[in-house]
Amino acid sequence: MRAVDLIRKKRDSHEHSGEEINFLVSGYTRGEIPDYQMSAWLMAAWIRGLSRAEIASLTEAMLHSGEVISFPELPGKKVDKHSTGGVGDKTSLILAPIVAAGGLHVPMISGRGLGHTGGTLDKLEAIPGFNTALSLAEFRRVLRECGMGLIGQTAEIAPADKKIYALRDVTSTVENIGLICASIMSKKLAEGIDALVLDVKTGSGAFMQKEDDAVRLAELMVETARRMGKTAVALITDMDQPLGRFAGHSHEVIESIEVLRGRGAADLRDLSLELSAWMFFLGERTKSVDEGRALAEKLVASGEALKKFEQGIALQSGDARVIDNYELLPQARNRQKIESRSNGYLAATNCMEFGIALATLGGGREKKEDTIDPGVGLEFHKRIGDRITTGETLVTVFYNSDAKLAEAAVRIENSFIFSDQPVPPKKLVRHLVGDLQ
Amino acid sequence: MRAVDLIRKKRDSHEHSGEEINFLVSGYTRGEIPDYQMSAWLMAAWIRGLSRAEIASLTEAMLHSGEVISFPELPGKKVDKHSTGGVGDKTSLILAPIVAAGGLHVPMISGRGLGHTGGTLDKLEAIPGFNTALSLAEFRRVLRECGMGLIGQTAEIAPADKKIYALRDVTSTVENIGLICASIMSKKLAEGIDALVLDVKTGSGAFMQKEDDAVRLAELMVETARRMGKTAVALITDMDQPLGRFAGHSHEVIESIEVLRGRGAADLRDLSLELSAWMFFLGERTKSVDEGRALAEKLVASGEALKKFEQGIALQSGDARVIDNYELLPQARNRQKIESRSNGYLAATNCMEFGIALATLGGGREKKEDTIDPGVGLEFHKRIGDRITTGETLVTVFYNSDAKLAEAAVRIENSFIFSDQPVPPKKLVRHLVGDLQ
Repeated sequence: MRAVDLIRKKRDSHEHSGEEINFLVSGYTRGEIPDYQMSAWLMAAWIRGLSRAEIASLTEAMLHSGEVISFPELPGKKVDKHSTGGVGDKTSLILAPIVAAGGLHVPMISGRGLGHTGGTLDKLEAIPGFNTALSLAEFRRVLRECGMGLIGQTAEIAPADKKIYALRDVTSTVENIGLICASIMSKKLAEGIDALVLDVKTGSGAFMQKEDDAVRLAELMVETARRMGKTAVALITDMDQPLGRFAGHSHEVIESIEVLRGRGAADLRDLSLELSAWMFFLGERTKSVDEGRALAEKLVASGEALKKFEQGIALQSGDARVIDNYELLPQARNRQKIESRSNGYLAATNCMEFGIALATLGGGREKKEDTIDPGVGLEFHKRIGDRITTGETLVTVFYNSDAKLAEAAVRIENSFIFSDQPVPPKKLVRHLVGDLQ
Repeated sequence: MRAVDLIRKKRDSHEHSGEEINFLVSGYTRGEIPDYQMSAWLMAAWIRGLSRAEIASLTEAMLHSGEVISFPELPGKKVDKHSTGGVGDKTSLILAPIVAAGGLHVPMISGRGLGHTGGTLDKLEAIPGFNTALSLAEFRRVLRECGMGLIGQTAEIAPADKKIYALRDVTSTVENIGLICASIMSKKLAEGIDALVLDVKTGSGAFMQKEDDAVRLAELMVETARRMGKTAVALITDMDQPLGRFAGHSHEVIESIEVLRGRGAADLRDLSLELSAWMFFLGERTKSVDEGRALAEKLVASGEALKKFEQGIALQSGDARVIDNYELLPQARNRQKIESRSNGYLAATNCMEFGIALATLGGGREKKEDTIDPGVGLEFHKRIGDRITTGETLVTVFYNSDAKLAEAAVRIENSFIFSDQPVPPKKLVRHLVGDLQ
């Protein structure tokens, strides 16, 4: 088998066998197939597309390029959630403690933010001392002790994905649902989970801006999980506006704690409980999603979920006093209100621009090497459907640099779209993909 | 400007500006754009296609990536011929001496064989001592002295093409008429010629197997030449069977000398004279192509063309005694006849297989680094349309290795297609592209 022939095959729209896909992925991971052949194949695959069988083969080859964890020592089902990313999406910090408090194990391997999206690892690292770089042995110990563990992708897990993703990033071959599916699922299936809840974002702040694309990606991921013998369900959720009231690392940790206290923004709270409910159901902790939702609500109301978060932070070397003292989290020095220049109903937002504005302030990465300023942030005062009058505050910007503020403010101001007519509020969960319940 | 954005642009089927194409080509040549980005762009360009303006920009950028030669010291027009390659195509060795003998200058920069095709440089190097690696100063001197010079692509000429072609070769992005056009024309226009005759092969032994593709490539090349201020014409010629009676390096040198003596196979002789005639006409040596043909015939009949070849060989350090003593050329030790197992009319050949069979014997390259055995060869006894009876010799194989003979013989035997009905002979020149005469 030769890489050049497989490139030609995909270029000419033919379907690969599982053996061929494995040859490409394992050869590339071992450094036997050079970057320039892999990037040509990726472009051919991007344009010509991959079949469902090819995507499953790709996922499997990437999964087996590294270590596949399993937790035979832990009782019960292991469950996780994955979100395709958006602005203000901090549900992992909320649902992991809820689900662990409910008795399931949540071995969560998360990513970092890039471009307009935030990353769970970066958010956790706003907590002083929090260590996301646990060894596999430490990860097991933390999971055993408190039921949840939140770490980053290690060198041992799906190394093919790491290498292929880095190449896609610089060759404009990222936005393809087959490649996205294989990238996500190879990492998630390496975690040793039994069931996975997928939160596929759609709208102006999502990678999949069109709902159809989001549904197609969700279907692919659910099917790929099934082919690998795992249970999965996908919720297609709204990202036409930020999730919750805050974006920015310290702010999102605080908002997560607030939700775990039974407070916080309604949309964030609802989605976190809904995702937790599905995790309880798929993890066979409850007999229905409704029962799962009730359990999640109870664990928040009783304070058990918050207690679990506190325990999890401490076990990963974080300063758990942040739970009761938000001032221990890094804070920006200055704040600035951005006021509405219009009257009317908030009809839409260009949500991705908020993410880019946050990155501009220092709260995101353009390149992987960039460091993050966890103290900067955005507070969103209005939701789609709200009636707004001139002079009302739309956003509060928490910032450290005047020059960066100016640049971010322009982006933010231009990202609100008003209407003279009343606008219905956005539905948060738009679809459910997966033939369950 | 960033390479990643230009890759995306082509991926999404948009047209590049000349500036963008130049950024890619010059950046890649200088090593600022890595192989893996260029190969992704090449695949996108292969699949999405390039506009005529993009192809002209690409040609120009590649042309100006290196030195563009000119010969202000030489009187009259400088002309050349380029063939897209096939099996047994040795017209360069015949027409260069004819046209130089006729008083025009032929600065010919040629390539090497790869895959099923032979290369002019390799054929010339079958002549003991023949040096195709002249410096530019030596090339000028040889041209001034005898009107013809035959060298390989130097590091100074179109380095972008050299680098891009090597990448295309290993990423299955070769067979695209836009990329082929830019590759050919950037080299040819760097030679300092005023006019170019293109021999675009079509049929079972050509890169462009379909006549439509050959015509499209020819039109593109003629138009690109025109955009660059050069005169060009393209002949679409048959490659459904080998050109002439022999393939193989020493054998092709001998057959070329035979044609220059007024002998040799009719098809080879006719095409060589026809291409020479067009070179005379485009080079303004004659007022018409007919007059050019008459001149070419006269130069062969008088022996002046052969004399010119002898002079050219000597000036490039070759042993010019080969003209009168073919035994000075490397010869294979053994020969084997392949006889027909069928009765009938020869209807078609799988001509590319003959080229591969020759390479199998050692008379071609699979990889650039391979060395060539110039003594091996094939003699074709039959032409399409011939009536053949069982036991008649189809091909004589000249070989050095029994194992290689066995492999080659199977390919050759399986590449003749017979018919019970009479088959008309093939027309050699199928079309003419270019609005001249």
